[in-house]
Amino acid sequence: MAPSAVSAAQLGLAEELADAAGAVIRPYFRQKIAVDDKADASPVTIADREAEQAMRALIEARFPADGIFGEEFGSVRADSEWVWVLDPIDGTKSFISGIPLFGTLIALLHRGRPVLGIIDQPISHERWRGVAGRQSTHNGEPIRARPCPDLAAASLFATAPDMFRGADADAFARLKSRVKLTRHGGDCYAYGLVASGFIDCVVEASLKPYDYCAMVAIIEGAGGVFTDWQGQPLGLGSDGRVLAAGDRRVHAAALTLLAG
Amino acid sequence: MAPSAVSAAQLGLAEELADAAGAVIRPYFRQKIAVDDKADASPVTIADREAEQAMRALIEARFPADGIFGEEFGSVRADSEWVWVLDPIDGTKSFISGIPLFGTLIALLHRGRPVLGIIDQPISHERWRGVAGRQSTHNGEPIRARPCPDLAAASLFATAPDMFRGADADAFARLKSRVKLTRHGGDCYAYGLVASGFIDCVVEASLKPYDYCAMVAIIEGAGGVFTDWQGQPLGLGSDGRVLAAGDRRVHAAALTLLAG
Repeated sequence: MAPSAVSAAQLGLAEELADAAGAVIRPYFRQKIAVDDKADASPVTIADREAEQAMRALIEARFPADGIFGEEFGSVRADSEWVWVLDPIDGTKSFISGIPLFGTLIALLHRGRPVLGIIDQPISHERWRGVAGRQSTHNGEPIRARPCPDLAAASLFATAPDMFRGADADAFARLKSRVKLTRHGGDCYAYGLVASGFIDCVVEASLKPYDYCAMVAIIEGAGGVFTDWQGQPLGLGSDGRVLAAGDRRVHAAALTLLAG
Repeated sequence: MAPSAVSAAQLGLAEELADAAGAVIRPYFRQKIAVDDKADASPVTIADREAEQAMRALIEARFPADGIFGEEFGSVRADSEWVWVLDPIDGTKSFISGIPLFGTLIALLHRGRPVLGIIDQPISHERWRGVAGRQSTHNGEPIRARPCPDLAAASLFATAPDMFRGADADAFARLKSRVKLTRHGGDCYAYGLVASGFIDCVVEASLKPYDYCAMVAIIEGAGGVFTDWQGQPLGLGSDGRVLAAGDRRVHAAALTLLAG
């Protein structure tokens, strides 16, 4: 089998899903819409729900045998060979605050392995795309992660300090104490910028599969490394702790520090 | 004297300064440019320096008697009746990471009181403008801060948790424990979104006058409140602790919590 089993039809659908989600989301941005609290106290809006519904309808119409796992409407046909993993708005807190760093995340998994990923920012009209075995792109242009020889020269991003609890907070503090610069608030956008070569490292915890599966092919196809905190490949069964780095030397050093 | 002593010529120059800074900054965004460390370990680039030089040259040509206080090149004629306070790139860490939330900040002070302010984001082409006694605008459209009855319903932004040290960190933690949602990473953009009615509160510390003077007229002209942590008006002599809120009930409650 070729490095990527992704077909042109699947790739076309992935782009259509991103287009459809963006078309739903854009008219709601910076409008006074209701914000509901989910069971985990995270916010959700009509834009999240309608964008996921639009994507699910397209998948059902085009590839009705494929599985779907979405943030807002759960899982169907989870044991299918192909499963689409969807986050209509990653970064809903940014979205409701008027900050255009949120994104629609679309991943396609083949037998549990993420082989296609899209990060789409519908306000700035930026789209990162990764396909296993191919070079990643940003708005269609090939991208490469940048070299960074060691942690002392690295920039580190994590969406929020509160995502690290207990021993995870200690691990993050160890890493933060060794890098050049730490920033918060990036959401999925920070992963795109690792692939584009402007950020060196993203470390997060307490994530769900729809928060990270889309980034796997994007980061790897730009020459970066994206694993869990044990250095293992990411998939539906990962524990929600992730480490992305543009340079494998930074990834290796960060892994060691996170392990304690 | 009218509420605002700002002349059409001064307002025109302020807009020209923002245009000039943006023209300098845009070509450097997401380019591989050198990042130098300043004495305080904060980063600076050729884009910061050239943007401030462009603005200073325009002021010197048009209003040679006015004072200028800029982040990168210091102060001249500080005792003038009118003083321009400039931050060519507020959020240089965002700028060098490829994140379009940084901004050019331009303030005009009349006898020490900020009477004109601009926040300009040159990548998303967004400009907030405030003039004492007039309604603030975002890209020319009038804006209003939103009502928020109490802290429990409020969103709180601060660029970085590390900006709070010692007792300031305790004060921020008290406030954070009482709001609905806390986010980091906003830079000047978060203040613009308070004026536009999408964020309720920004609390920061360790700031310099060029980090906050531009926001005074913008927040006040949108119906919000922007003071130091004692509730006093902001100016060149403030201590770098600031509190912006869209609703004065949130401002009052936050002041009390910050005081301990």
